[in-house]
Amino acid sequence: MRKQVKTGIVGLDEMLSGGLLEGSTTLVKGAPGTGNTTLGMQFLHSGITDEDERGLLVSFEEFPFSLHRDALSLGWDLRKLEKEERLRLIFTSPRIFLASLQSPESPLNLTIQEWDIRRLVLDSISHFTRMTRDPKELRQIYNRVINGLKREGITSILTSEDSGTGLSTEEKGRLSFIVDNIILTRYVEIDSSMQRALLVLKTRGSDHAKEIRRFKLREGGIVVGTKFEGREALLSGSPRAIAPGR
Amino acid sequence: MRKQVKTGIVGLDEMLSGGLLEGSTTLVKGAPGTGNTTLGMQFLHSGITDEDERGLLVSFEEFPFSLHRDALSLGWDLRKLEKEERLRLIFTSPRIFLASLQSPESPLNLTIQEWDIRRLVLDSISHFTRMTRDPKELRQIYNRVINGLKREGITSILTSEDSGTGLSTEEKGRLSFIVDNIILTRYVEIDSSMQRALLVLKTRGSDHAKEIRRFKLREGGIVVGTKFEGREALLSGSPRAIAPGR
Amino acid sequence: MRKQVKTGIVGLDEMLSGGLLEGSTTLVKGAPGTGNTTLGMQFLHSGITDEDERGLLVSFEEFPFSLHRDALSLGWDLRKLEKEERLRLIFTSPRIFLASLQSPESPLNLTIQEWDIRRLVLDSISHFTRMTRDPKELRQIYNRVINGLKREGITSILTSEDSGTGLSTEEKGRLSFIVDNIILTRYVEIDSSMQRALLVLKTRGSDHAKEIRRFKLREGGIVVGTKFEGREALLSGSPRAIAPGR
Amino acid sequence: MRKQVKTGIVGLDEMLSGGLLEGSTTLVKGAPGTGNTTLGMQFLHSGITDEDERGLLVSFEEFPFSLHRDALSLGWDLRKLEKEERLRLIFTSPRIFLASLQSPESPLNLTIQEWDIRRLVLDSISHFTRMTRDPKELRQIYNRVINGLKREGITSILTSEDSGTGLSTEEKGRLSFIVDNIILTRYVEIDSSMQRALLVLKTRGSDHAKEIRRFKLREGGIVVGTKFEGREALLSGSPRAIAPGR
Amino acid sequence: MRKQVKTGIVGLDEMLSGGLLEGSTTLVKGAPGTGNTTLGMQFLHSGITDEDERGLLVSFEEFPFSLHRDALSLGWDLRKLEKEERLRLIFTSPRIFLASLQSPESPLNLTIQEWDIRRLVLDSISHFTRMTRDPKELRQIYNRVINGLKREGITSILTSEDSGTGLSTEEKGRLSFIVDNIILTRYVEIDSSMQRALLVLKTRGSDHAKEIRRFKLREGGIVVGTKFEGREALLSGSPRAIAPGR
Amino acid sequence: MRKQVKTGIVGLDEMLSGGLLEGSTTLVKGAPGTGNTTLGMQFLHSGITDEDERGLLVSFEEFPFSLHRDALSLGWDLRKLEKEERLRLIFTSPRIFLASLQSPESPLNLTIQEWDIRRLVLDSISHFTRMTRDPKELRQIYNRVINGLKREGITSILTSEDSGTGLSTEEKGRLSFIVDNIILTRYVEIDSSMQRALLVLKTRGSDHAKEIRRFKLREGGIVVGTKFEGREALLSGSPRAIAPGR
Repeated sequence: MRKQVKTGIVGLDEMLSGGLLEGSTTLVKGAPGTGNTTLGMQFLHSGITDEDERGLLVSFEEFPFSLHRDALSLGWDLRKLEKEERLRLIFTSPRIFLASLQSPESPLNLTIQEWDIRRLVLDSISHFTRMTRDPKELRQIYNRVINGLKREGITSILTSEDSGTGLSTEEKGRLSFIVDNIILTRYVEIDSSMQRALLVLKTRGSDHAKEIRRFKLREGGIVVGTKFEGREALLSGSPRAIAPGR
Repeated sequence: MRKQVKTGIVGLDEMLSGGLLEGSTTLVKGAPGTGNTTLGMQFLHSGITDEDERGLLVSFEEFPFSLHRDALSLGWDLRKLEKEERLRLIFTSPRIFLASLQSPESPLNLTIQEWDIRRLVLDSISHFTRMTRDPKELRQIYNRVINGLKREGITSILTSEDSGTGLSTEEKGRLSFIVDNIILTRYVEIDSSMQRALLVLKTRGSDHAKEIRRFKLREGGIVVGTKFEGREALLSGSPRAIAPGR
Repeated sequence: MRKQVKTGIVGLDEMLSGGLLEGSTTLVKGAPGTGNTTLGMQFLHSGITDEDERGLLVSFEEFPFSLHRDALSLGWDLRKLEKEERLRLIFTSPRIFLASLQSPESPLNLTIQEWDIRRLVLDSISHFTRMTRDPKELRQIYNRVINGLKREGITSILTSEDSGTGLSTEEKGRLSFIVDNIILTRYVEIDSSMQRALLVLKTRGSDHAKEIRRFKLREGGIVVGTKFEGREALLSGSPRAIAPGR
Repeated sequence: MRKQVKTGIVGLDEMLSGGLLEGSTTLVKGAPGTGNTTLGMQFLHSGITDEDERGLLVSFEEFPFSLHRDALSLGWDLRKLEKEERLRLIFTSPRIFLASLQSPESPLNLTIQEWDIRRLVLDSISHFTRMTRDPKELRQIYNRVINGLKREGITSILTSEDSGTGLSTEEKGRLSFIVDNIILTRYVEIDSSMQRALLVLKTRGSDHAKEIRRFKLREGGIVVGTKFEGREALLSGSPRAIAPGR
Repeated sequence: MRKQVKTGIVGLDEMLSGGLLEGSTTLVKGAPGTGNTTLGMQFLHSGITDEDERGLLVSFEEFPFSLHRDALSLGWDLRKLEKEERLRLIFTSPRIFLASLQSPESPLNLTIQEWDIRRLVLDSISHFTRMTRDPKELRQIYNRVINGLKREGITSILTSEDSGTGLSTEEKGRLSFIVDNIILTRYVEIDSSMQRALLVLKTRGSDHAKEIRRFKLREGGIVVGTKFEGREALLSGSPRAIAPGR
Repeated sequence: MRKQVKTGIVGLDEMLSGGLLEGSTTLVKGAPGTGNTTLGMQFLHSGITDEDERGLLVSFEEFPFSLHRDALSLGWDLRKLEKEERLRLIFTSPRIFLASLQSPESPLNLTIQEWDIRRLVLDSISHFTRMTRDPKELRQIYNRVINGLKREGITSILTSEDSGTGLSTEEKGRLSFIVDNIILTRYVEIDSSMQRALLVLKTRGSDHAKEIRRFKLREGGIVVGTKFEGREALLSGSPRAIAPGR
């Protein structure tokens, strides 16, 4: 059995029966505000502080500064970690990233090797859809990205901007079928409030909890709570209350 | 922790646990008549009267006079504020606004600096969809707009004409993923009446109330009420009553 | 506070807390047979008989005679009113109307001035969609029409052929965001019968009743009744009965 | 008040508070097998036998013989009526029909005048969609057809092949807004059986019953029954039973 | 009254109040595995063994042998019937079939006449959609096929590959409006099992049972059972249980 | 009656009343993570170890190594089986596979004959959609594939990447109508957890269980459990609880 990599999010590691398989790629899909980027940063931060593993965050985010600010508000000082050379942030474009990933001598690959990067977050993989409209070409791009990441046995998290509801994994390029693991984050309306729900939809080569669990964004990051009770059709976003009698 | 900017709408500031982060961009999406423009005007008016911060309202609205009239009916005399040089109204086109925002010497930027503008409302950002049909180009336009606004650390509200229901943030240019905060206004059918509902869907770098709350448009502006009770699937627009037993 | 113009439909004027703002444009959207044209005619007829204000009805209707016939069946003799020069009917095409509206010397504008027209009905604005397929151009057309009407401070009702259900205001040219007021008429299935429902969705610069009310077409015109009881999801067109216990 | 023309279908004439307005055009929309053609034939047959008015049936039907056969199975001998020169059947194409309708000297118009045709059935108007894909052009075609029929004051029934459910009148050419009256026939699932439902959706210039009523196809034609009880959302095709308590 | 042709499926003949009208065309629509082909084969087999009428099966099926195998598994030895010259199987393409049908001297037509074919099954008519993308042309093709079959007074069953649910008969070429009879087969989820449901949606010139009935595929063919009880919205595929109280 | 081939999955063989017909093609459709590939591997593994039948796995999978890893995690050492020449893995492209299948002398066909291959898994057939956008051409490709497999009487399982829910078998190329058997795997939300559901939708030439059953992925492979109780609309993915009373 291969080594497992803790995400550092207690409840999630539980759900993953230990963590993510080393060298696996994990897709984290969710609506805006459901905390995909936070989940990725926490994965890196935990690797650095708990496992002393250096982390690499590749961001296609249009506003670099907001990443630092968001991290700070969660209690993580990214600049400090960068100064200590335990974290590396790369702000680039999908096209450049793909090119670097494929040229062994690129700064990216040199960093990966010299720094012995074990954990990588790509925020967000949705930006690759800007490179082409052809689903076949997009699928090839995804394959190249994932191949490049697997080559070095890196455990990576790919965030995905997903506005949908429910289970639907319909997407150009069939990314969901290529990645090893899928984590869904959703908004669920409960008692006239929006709550965040988290679900492990798929893990390759190991079993996982099937529960749909609450989670919160707090200082310190994501806190996974208990599963929902007395509701059905949670993934629709508008669950129904179940009569106690039932 | 960075300073927070009060919207001046009591219930909403509560939900935002204090207000909007200074320098953040907030998307206010809602159907016609749900009060997006009012929310923006109240944000400016409160800044002027409560915080003595000058405000700038950029409107792509086809009928300038209706803005003044609507404000008056809510008890706000915009012309007076303009005369006192505490408020500046600019009626322009998306194309001109974008160009001015990018040329440092433009009247727009001069106003922003000379007047030391801290609060800006853009009514409505939907008009940028008139500039292109290409989602990639639209996303770039949105980025330029938001970059331009953030450059000066302006706290801005972008209203969005949104005819949809539910949570769906599907939109050309993925605006929802670029802005810092999202506020949704919706119509909800309760007891054979249409009520207005307000929801903070996302705030960057801080937590916020998840409740779906009633609100009213009154003289003086928006008044946020309590959350809805005994209903489920509010965001569908046609909620279901829940049996008390449940 | 500006003067309000009574529609002459008692229940509706109540819902509008007095009537329509003078000089405002009101969109009346509804499925075929829900009485949009009737509402417009009643608005004009009441202006003539109750307020002694002359009215102008611009119709793009393919069958002029049916307009007279329908009016008669409701008890209104349009020909008589025309003879008395208290009502003017113009049967024209969208293109010609738009051109006339923009040329000050056009018969249309002369009529408006010489007759001192205060109330105008356009039946139906949907016909403008026949002029272009480009949403941007359509929006400009709508703006020109509404600007033209507002120039003279005319209070106008624009009927719209709307086959949809629910609240959706999705439409080419975003008309709903340009007009001042929106009234929706709908069919609702109650006790195996189709009933007509009326709703004020939006009024600019004033509050309005949010109730969904029954209405009937009678000799004498529209009679607005009470709101619906014991049903939810009325706007879906297929409401659910609510158990009395709830 | 203008004369009313009985359809000869007892329950339906009731629902129409007497019948169809003389000279009006009625759209009968329904799914295959719901009896639209039967309704039209019964209208003609009743005119001939009860009112001694000659009838004209224009059919675009691909299989003339099936019309005769269907009529026979309902107890109507069309050939006999043709021999007696009380009924005229014309099998033609949409294009030819439209051309004839517009040329005063065409056999069609001569028949209409010489025979003094008061009742006409067009089966089915959906075939005109085969003439063009342009909605504007289609609307003009519909207008020409209906104008042609109204010119002579003919009371006409236009059947329409409609596969939809519910109330939706979405259609190319906006036919529903041009005709005077609309009758919908639908399938409704009740107690694991398909029942036929009939509904008068719109009548111009007169009121009508709003009930959704059962109907059957029997020897002798359509028999309209009582309205449905204890069900809601009938028009969805899959109604819900309502608890007696409610 | 014309002669009726038994399908040989007891329950179905009941529902058809005797059988199919001689010379009529029947569309059998259903999802894969719901037994459309079986229904057709049983119709032919019953004709041969019970009525001593020869049958013709025209198949566009890609795998001839599977037809023989499926028949065998149901207890029907097609090869034997072919040897006895009581059944004729023709495996061909839509294009060739259409051409032969229209040339009087074609082997197909010669067979039909020499063999005095009374019953024909076309499996499946969906394959004609492969001949054109133009709905008008498709409708003409359907008309030619059905005309060709009716010319000889053949009673025919046309199977249709239909993946939909519910009643929707939306289809290119409006086949449902051209055929005489429509039989729908559906899957229905009851008590966590998939059951087969059968429904006669339309019969031309005669009445029919409206029930939605269970059916099974057994050795010997289709066995139609009782109608469903205590469920509503069967045709949705996901029926709701009805409380006994109701 | 022809021989049946056990899948080696106890519950599934039960549902298939013994197994798959020898020489048949089975489509296994499911969402990512529902275990389609596992089902195929187990079918091969069981053939090798229980029936001493050699197996061939053709994979279009982008990451060969993950196949080995996944198998290992389920307790199957594919490399060992390959060394023992009891299993053959071929990683290729849709285009090459199709070409080889059609050339008798291709390594693929030689392997099939020399190894006397009885069981084959194609993972996944969805990749053929990458070869063309034309549904007709796709259907021909599917036919060639399935013909090629049937020629040798091979019993084959074709996995299909399916992101849908419910029963819908809508797909380009109408694959569902060509294959002999269809097995659906689905996610179902029960008590705030995602459970895996398995369903035999269609088997050619034999009956099968209609139940919707739970299944789990364990070391050793798929374990099929009991059917679901007290729920309706399972295939919607969001089932409703049924009151015990019902």
